[in-house]
Amino acid sequence: MNIFITNDDGIQARGIRQLIEIAREFGNVYVVAPDGPQSGKSHAITLSVPMRAKPFGEEPGLVQYACSGTPVDCVKLGLIELFKDVHMDLLLSGINHGSNAATNVLYSGTMAAAIEGIMEGVPSIGFSMASYDQQVDFAPAVESIRTIIRKMLEVGKVGMCWNVNLPVGEIKGIRACAQAHASWDERILRREDPHGRPYYWLEGDFENDDPRTDTDSYYLDRGYVAVVPVSIDMTDKTALGQMGEYFK
Amino acid sequence: MNIFITNDDGIQARGIRQLIEIAREFGNVYVVAPDGPQSGKSHAITLSVPMRAKPFGEEPGLVQYACSGTPVDCVKLGLIELFKDVHMDLLLSGINHGSNAATNVLYSGTMAAAIEGIMEGVPSIGFSMASYDQQVDFAPAVESIRTIIRKMLEVGKVGMCWNVNLPVGEIKGIRACAQAHASWDERILRREDPHGRPYYWLEGDFENDDPRTDTDSYYLDRGYVAVVPVSIDMTDKTALGQMGEYFK
Repeated sequence: MNIFITNDDGIQARGIRQLIEIAREFGNVYVVAPDGPQSGKSHAITLSVPMRAKPFGEEPGLVQYACSGTPVDCVKLGLIELFKDVHMDLLLSGINHGSNAATNVLYSGTMAAAIEGIMEGVPSIGFSMASYDQQVDFAPAVESIRTIIRKMLEVGKVGMCWNVNLPVGEIKGIRACAQAHASWDERILRREDPHGRPYYWLEGDFENDDPRTDTDSYYLDRGYVAVVPVSIDMTDKTALGQMGEYFK
Repeated sequence: MNIFITNDDGIQARGIRQLIEIAREFGNVYVVAPDGPQSGKSHAITLSVPMRAKPFGEEPGLVQYACSGTPVDCVKLGLIELFKDVHMDLLLSGINHGSNAATNVLYSGTMAAAIEGIMEGVPSIGFSMASYDQQVDFAPAVESIRTIIRKMLEVGKVGMCWNVNLPVGEIKGIRACAQAHASWDERILRREDPHGRPYYWLEGDFENDDPRTDTDSYYLDRGYVAVVPVSIDMTDKTALGQMGEYFK
């Protein structure tokens, strides 16, 4: 098996090191990951400056590059150029430090990289852990990650992408579920620089106000690993059905 | 009516100037747009550096700020802070220079800003013209843009977002349609700097290999304005239905 790995926290982050270690149990691992943090970059691509990629250590069964671009750039550069002669069986992204459940999927560089897998024809999984603690313990989640990789290698096909969120601590089970309609309650922090000119920081709290009991946020909050299958078709089919007479 | 406007080509781009001119026919216009080009930024948000916003001219019925952040930052900063006392009836993004039909919706800063409208509870429309020519003539599309804004002001509600793509030249009509499953046939251009070190550019051609005749790419190619209702629920419901037994 050939497995491609990237992330958005950068190639040195603990999360990707853990994911590489697990993936090596399944086959050869090829890494192109950002050379520094790229959180919140969503599906951004680099168009106005060229990208760089530097070898980042090589050993039997593991080849790595650190790339100056975004997570999606890393996927494109890896699959189209650096490892173009390798047939990838699976693309993994993560383990992200912080949840990508619910609408976070839209902002997440980790999930954008996994979603790019759909575009490139490689079954893909994004893994995120529901904690921003850089020293969080991944150990309780390792067996679940193995189970999910094994299942994707068994059933995976072109166009398949899973958004996997891991709870902190003991795991009660794994659940396939829907994306919650939860969102951020955001605030803007206004400050002034020494010249009296304002500048602004984004901050906020994540709020799950989705009453459904079959969603990723619901299960994640209750100690389950949440697996959401992701589609790149953003058409609102219900709304489309109501639009027939709008422009006739 | 109060209308918020942003884009991803920057506040000085011809597209946003045209959109502001049309929107002023409908009410007061509030603009927060990037202070330079932010194409391909998708749903990226700025977390590691603070944002700046500078007044960019004010006249009766029109207030404008140029912001150092991404298109999505502009929406958050505008709605949550700069214009927090104004109830916005509509959010417009664009007119983008270049099509955002099909899977381009995932990469587009223009559409990410419109989609952010869903999160902030404001009905929203992203407009894009299928040409990268900076001197493209918007005039043939103006009446269609008016029609679509008028319709959204009539039927718009929380959670409603339209991806509108405009053909170049004469317009045959307006069609509500689905997002095409078209994508980019991409290449990586490898070059070497004067020190012999490689660097890489992304390039590609857009290819519509979706055989369906009810999609945005299909109608756009045939001279129609294509309107796709967009959802932030990326759950692949078909795949979810097949996953019931995966992790039991």
